[in-house]
Amino acid sequence: MTTYVLVHGAWQDGESWDRVRPELEALGHAVHTPTAGGLRPGDSADVGTEDACQPIIDYILEHKLIDFVLVGHSWGGVLIAKIAEALSDRIRRLVFQSAFVLLDGQAVLDNIPPFFPPALQANAEERGDGTVMLPFEVWRDGFMNDATIDLAREVYSHLRPQPLRTFTEPVDLKRFFELPLPKSYLNATEDNGLLQGEWGWHPRMSNRLGYFRLVQMPGGHEVMYTSPKLLATKIVEAGRD
Amino acid sequence: MTTYVLVHGAWQDGESWDRVRPELEALGHAVHTPTAGGLRPGDSADVGTEDACQPIIDYILEHKLIDFVLVGHSWGGVLIAKIAEALSDRIRRLVFQSAFVLLDGQAVLDNIPPFFPPALQANAEERGDGTVMLPFEVWRDGFMNDATIDLAREVYSHLRPQPLRTFTEPVDLKRFFELPLPKSYLNATEDNGLLQGEWGWHPRMSNRLGYFRLVQMPGGHEVMYTSPKLLATKIVEAGRD
Amino acid sequence: MTTYVLVHGAWQDGESWDRVRPELEALGHAVHTPTAGGLRPGDSADVGTEDACQPIIDYILEHKLIDFVLVGHSWGGVLIAKIAEALSDRIRRLVFQSAFVLLDGQAVLDNIPPFFPPALQANAEERGDGTVMLPFEVWRDGFMNDATIDLAREVYSHLRPQPLRTFTEPVDLKRFFELPLPKSYLNATEDNGLLQGEWGWHPRMSNRLGYFRLVQMPGGHEVMYTSPKLLATKIVEAGRD
Repeated sequence: MTTYVLVHGAWQDGESWDRVRPELEALGHAVHTPTAGGLRPGDSADVGTEDACQPIIDYILEHKLIDFVLVGHSWGGVLIAKIAEALSDRIRRLVFQSAFVLLDGQAVLDNIPPFFPPALQANAEERGDGTVMLPFEVWRDGFMNDATIDLAREVYSHLRPQPLRTFTEPVDLKRFFELPLPKSYLNATEDNGLLQGEWGWHPRMSNRLGYFRLVQMPGGHEVMYTSPKLLATKIVEAGRD
Repeated sequence: MTTYVLVHGAWQDGESWDRVRPELEALGHAVHTPTAGGLRPGDSADVGTEDACQPIIDYILEHKLIDFVLVGHSWGGVLIAKIAEALSDRIRRLVFQSAFVLLDGQAVLDNIPPFFPPALQANAEERGDGTVMLPFEVWRDGFMNDATIDLAREVYSHLRPQPLRTFTEPVDLKRFFELPLPKSYLNATEDNGLLQGEWGWHPRMSNRLGYFRLVQMPGGHEVMYTSPKLLATKIVEAGRD
Repeated sequence: MTTYVLVHGAWQDGESWDRVRPELEALGHAVHTPTAGGLRPGDSADVGTEDACQPIIDYILEHKLIDFVLVGHSWGGVLIAKIAEALSDRIRRLVFQSAFVLLDGQAVLDNIPPFFPPALQANAEERGDGTVMLPFEVWRDGFMNDATIDLAREVYSHLRPQPLRTFTEPVDLKRFFELPLPKSYLNATEDNGLLQGEWGWHPRMSNRLGYFRLVQMPGGHEVMYTSPKLLATKIVEAGRD
């Protein structure tokens, strides 16, 4: 039995794991899915990386979780790197699932294809409340390319506005890159959220981890919705000793 | 029900889809497989890109096809880009299957590994009739690597001479890159026709589409022969809304 | 019926094919698995590439093998390139399975990620007997990432010390690159032994073969242990005419 703490991506919350949780539990594991700061109902939009991490750190401490595998999806990769700095003694292994691995001092917006940042900034200015959203067309073809349009629409309807500052703020990760924690990268081979090659998730992000365990599966960025059962087995392959 | 217009690759004709058509029809779709100019029995070899497109454009107009998904395989990618310029109002989505996506003003020969153009030019000079052929060894290992040798030989025996000018003529694609049509790239992961990496189909060609939907399947360049049933489902995944 | 000569990787011997041999035999093929010089019980550690090849060349001559497919795994790719120089008339096709393809005059250590050579040299100095070993952590996450930890430990327990000189000595491959033998590259898509992209096996190594047949399968560097049945069918796809 392994304890998994699953950290969701941008525009999402702990419920994004609702289809994966029962699969992991059926395999005999304990699963925790806390929601990041800025994404909970009523949260302020004036939130940066440290603020986003705090509710997850609090959750782990309150539940006295130790010796767990910490999984981060997409933007959740930024969070698990910072959480690992704070709680490295409690963590057995880090798993980055189609996730950002920022270099020390970088922001999310430094790590996405050049057409993206101006589009996101323009959207945020239009919204005017410190948050940003993703157009459905981008979500459908880049993030949920392996889904039916009905499923893509359903998941999109549950997305929450993302605090822009979590994308623009540089993140100090000096300590992260010195942690001796074992690391895995779980890559979905059709994930086209950041396009492929020069800007793709893998191997651009994964190779930043140093020597890491690679696990791959077919699917797009949101395999927690399109292939939850397979994702659960791949999380286990990525997270086991 | 979706209408698909499937455009074949070089050295081939509409019959190259003979194994895929019944699979798509069994899924409830309408399928059209016109043959490009220069590849029909009796066609002149003195044919460029516009001449190659014309019979397909004529076919679409004659059959009053609208709201269809236009699929191009290999060299057919050059054709569907030009056809999209002419008929964009009729097209629902473009699907490039292991296909060329030329940059504006490029020719096919600008887009293949450096050893290829001199070999093709030498073959064309030897033939002396304005056409070019591919040696069986290249076809077998690069294009039909996932087939038995018997199937590779059978398909090879049906190949037709390709008008050389369709490879050497620069193609004006200024309008194509401004069309607001949604685009998908369907990549067969073992396609080694253009080798891999620097010269590979994907992501070199696919990323030129801008933001696109990625669909992948196992197989080589001629999955219409080696995996027609799976190809049909992947064409649907690539072509659906 | 095809005759296969399978050449193992570094730290291993002919027994590394013990799970694959019966699968290939069940498909009707003849299988030979000689062990390289330096890796047999009692062998000196003062062994370079030519010394490593000699027992395999002797085996092929003694058994009067002709018209066979020569398969090299990992470091075995260095060996089959040299053996092909010596015995090209007897070989039907070369298959490189997650294997090194050295450029003429290179050593193995020129072809691995920059953090590796100092680590291996330090390990060899510590051992002081002319051999080098791999730490279990690297083996587990980089080479047997697709295995349970029990299987990774079991296989690791059978590894033998590798003569360092087989990694440091430049290899003359002038004749190899002029041989007209057909070549295949069999890539396991999750093999992370050399990381991915810039330093990955494929397409870095494979594209050096010139025009080659690509065959891929899921799995890590040691698919002879984790997927022996599938590996056998992929060796056949890679080795057939």
